[in-house]
Amino acid sequence: MFESAEIGHAIDKDRYDELAPRLREALLDAQYELKARGDFPLLILIHGFDGAGRGETMNLINEWLDPRLIRTVAFDAPDDAARARPWMWRYWNALPAKGRIGMFFGSYYSDILVDRVERRIDRDACDRRLFDSLRFERMLAADGALVIKFWFHLSKDRQRKRFKELGKDPLTAWRVCDADWANHERYDRIRKTAEHMLRLTNTSFSPWVVVEGGDANYRNLTVAQTLLNALRDRLDAEGPLLPRVDVPPPTPPIDGRLLLDTLTLTQKLDKGAYQTRLAELQGRLNLMTRDPKFAKLSLALVFEGNDAAGKGGAIRRITEALDARRYRVVPVAAPTDEEKAQPWLWRFWRHVPGRGGITLFDRSWYGRVLVERVEGFADEAGWMRAYYEINDFEHQLAEDGAIVLKFWLAIGQEEQLERFKAREDTGFKRFKITDDDWRNRDRWGDYKLAVCDMIDRTGTDKAPWHLIEANNKYHARIKVLEILCRALAARLGG
Amino acid sequence: MFESAEIGHAIDKDRYDELAPRLREALLDAQYELKARGDFPLLILIHGFDGAGRGETMNLINEWLDPRLIRTVAFDAPDDAARARPWMWRYWNALPAKGRIGMFFGSYYSDILVDRVERRIDRDACDRRLFDSLRFERMLAADGALVIKFWFHLSKDRQRKRFKELGKDPLTAWRVCDADWANHERYDRIRKTAEHMLRLTNTSFSPWVVVEGGDANYRNLTVAQTLLNALRDRLDAEGPLLPRVDVPPPTPPIDGRLLLDTLTLTQKLDKGAYQTRLAELQGRLNLMTRDPKFAKLSLALVFEGNDAAGKGGAIRRITEALDARRYRVVPVAAPTDEEKAQPWLWRFWRHVPGRGGITLFDRSWYGRVLVERVEGFADEAGWMRAYYEINDFEHQLAEDGAIVLKFWLAIGQEEQLERFKAREDTGFKRFKITDDDWRNRDRWGDYKLAVCDMIDRTGTDKAPWHLIEANNKYHARIKVLEILCRALAARLGG
Repeated sequence: MFESAEIGHAIDKDRYDELAPRLREALLDAQYELKARGDFPLLILIHGFDGAGRGETMNLINEWLDPRLIRTVAFDAPDDAARARPWMWRYWNALPAKGRIGMFFGSYYSDILVDRVERRIDRDACDRRLFDSLRFERMLAADGALVIKFWFHLSKDRQRKRFKELGKDPLTAWRVCDADWANHERYDRIRKTAEHMLRLTNTSFSPWVVVEGGDANYRNLTVAQTLLNALRDRLDAEGPLLPRVDVPPPTPPIDGRLLLDTLTLTQKLDKGAYQTRLAELQGRLNLMTRDPKFAKLSLALVFEGNDAAGKGGAIRRITEALDARRYRVVPVAAPTDEEKAQPWLWRFWRHVPGRGGITLFDRSWYGRVLVERVEGFADEAGWMRAYYEINDFEHQLAEDGAIVLKFWLAIGQEEQLERFKAREDTGFKRFKITDDDWRNRDRWGDYKLAVCDMIDRTGTDKAPWHLIEANNKYHARIKVLEILCRALAARLGG
Repeated sequence: MFESAEIGHAIDKDRYDELAPRLREALLDAQYELKARGDFPLLILIHGFDGAGRGETMNLINEWLDPRLIRTVAFDAPDDAARARPWMWRYWNALPAKGRIGMFFGSYYSDILVDRVERRIDRDACDRRLFDSLRFERMLAADGALVIKFWFHLSKDRQRKRFKELGKDPLTAWRVCDADWANHERYDRIRKTAEHMLRLTNTSFSPWVVVEGGDANYRNLTVAQTLLNALRDRLDAEGPLLPRVDVPPPTPPIDGRLLLDTLTLTQKLDKGAYQTRLAELQGRLNLMTRDPKFAKLSLALVFEGNDAAGKGGAIRRITEALDARRYRVVPVAAPTDEEKAQPWLWRFWRHVPGRGGITLFDRSWYGRVLVERVEGFADEAGWMRAYYEINDFEHQLAEDGAIVLKFWLAIGQEEQLERFKAREDTGFKRFKITDDDWRNRDRWGDYKLAVCDMIDRTGTDKAPWHLIEANNKYHARIKVLEILCRALAARLGG
């Protein structure tokens, strides 16, 4: 993997002075084309050995290109907001917007490399995190991002020589610190681990580029040419940026029977029984969220359902029982422009609860495979790959200790009609009914199909869907609370 | 202050059922008008005694109004990102956008109240933080925000009775925990401190509303009516939302002599001396930022200057000496729509460095009193009050331990012309010159006046302006580095 990067590549000054200005100009043009198109970002990851020119490369890119259009983020040890969430959370937060260049100085790969070199994780844990990283990059690539990963390399001999040279001159001695020499001692182990890491993550959609770092001229030209080729290739390509769907969407059941048809929506609960049971369940819920063990987990609750099915009411019956400092209700509406410039899941990663926290999503990322599918806001390839991306997202939450519960509140068409009318007749409920609601109602069948596909493709052990018969609100609220309490008790009991 | 809130206010059910629906409908209408106008936010602060209905009020507002347009934030102990920054930082981050309603459950007032009741701060520190809070609210109000602060009150007797009632019923016992009883023991001290706090912060632009909390009907109607009156008053007012300027802008000096005219721009430094001195200073800077004492402070560096004065080059000579994980360069461009929906300083608060961190601003909040003033993007009242707001912002940074340094890079008109031409002639520098630059050049005199006003009004001991003669780039870069090193050494030496 590193063979060609240990042969002493070098470019002399004359040749450099001849090539550099042209390359620089071409790269800058490409950057401005990227900005003008604004439909994909370039993400550059900077890794490699100490002394191989990582910092210098970062400065080079910021000098040759327009730095106002570059977001450079250097990663150190995670702070406590990051530690309380899935480990990829902070990388999601640092993504460049479309049309921009992002530069990660260190990344998830450094977390893995350091932990493995220092033997804090074993080989299995290492590979598992490499797999997390690859899925992240696959998602970015599928969304159009250009991802290039640099490994700046130095042979062990060259590294020792470099450190000695720098150390001898009082003007440059500060560039080598004790930590650098300590890493030099571990050179062989770092090289071996890096080799493993690069091999497993060197994909066509996010390739590693290994660059010998000993000679600044060679290094600079190689980086610039690599970036230029990748950008030009993308900018000059004809046809759509994103691939078409690989496989067409699922066929609806040939016998016409859908999962939602199997529900008995008419279940009842009278008011007296409701009130007693509600108080009981709210009390239990409150005590469980104050259990010291709760501080180690988190709760992500997703509420989806037919319009007027009672999502808001069900949510409030839960929040009434909670300490206000623990929970957050996230009503999902149209994305802002900062959100539109990112992969579609970005705006939900923003709201991932930390440990000890509870987030209730009033509508959610499932809009991607419901309204965006039915109304055609997302193209087929977009919503088709969303099933995988959603499962991956929820998998990461669950692996990090979150309890993920998803509720589909179902009402019948007649019940919905009655509720729509009641809303129109009651002043303070009028806001709950819009033209969209009536339009969605006309596409009842399309939505039903989309809902059933969604449940089949994203209902998992770790993040199950619960179907709630909601023609009777009391029944629906109690069922939601019961499921929540049961799930919590199961986790806290262990 | 609390007298009228201890007399046992109550509303019977019939009257409540008569008044509530009308109030609810009117409030909802007002919320939709607020959304449609989108020119100011409503911020509601919820405080008061345990058991006086704070949580219930939060639920009421979310039930009566459209919760999708409300941002509720409950504040607990600050996390480490917040602890590493000025204490108001997390409240800035939580502000509602214009057209929306924000609800703070607890706020800076709870921080103060708890710290004072538990004797972690003395009376002086308490009042100083109350003053910070007031300046924050003044800024919000001046930006158009409607700020209403509720204190939910219960007499000591009523509180004890309420806790006992709740505790007796197994279905509600969970609503009273040990912490509630512990606070009850401290009732008198809390009441006294709250009284002091309310008195000092009960302004016309952000009034306290004290509500007796014993009777839910009375409490709900009072909250709803208060919010409705405030919103209607604002929505129905004629004329502009924001006040005109109080006092007209300063008169330019009658003799025509401006501070910038006193600079000798032609100072020189040759390349050899520059390179040696640069390496020396970069070495010193690097070592100082690795000093353990540096982890307790932070560095906010502001770069402003004439177009083509060499801000980017000066910044890079600093970052070359820094560990990439410590610093962040923030290039300031047009605000995003999330930023436009907030007070103008909000987008800079986002980037405040934490302790041990360094932020370099390539242009900054001073755009408010430079380009926005000269081009008329901000009205007179807006940029006039910006001087105060900027000083307040920098004061908070400095009080929190930040070193704030501001550089004005000055070049002459001829030098600028030569640089503009060189930029147009060099392919890879073309991006650095735009039509805007030529237009700004035509307004040289207006900018000069604005710069001199800015320096006079915002150059402070804690956050001084440094004028850098920049016709010679070597001289400018070395002077910036020298000032930075001197400021750092002064702080670390102590």
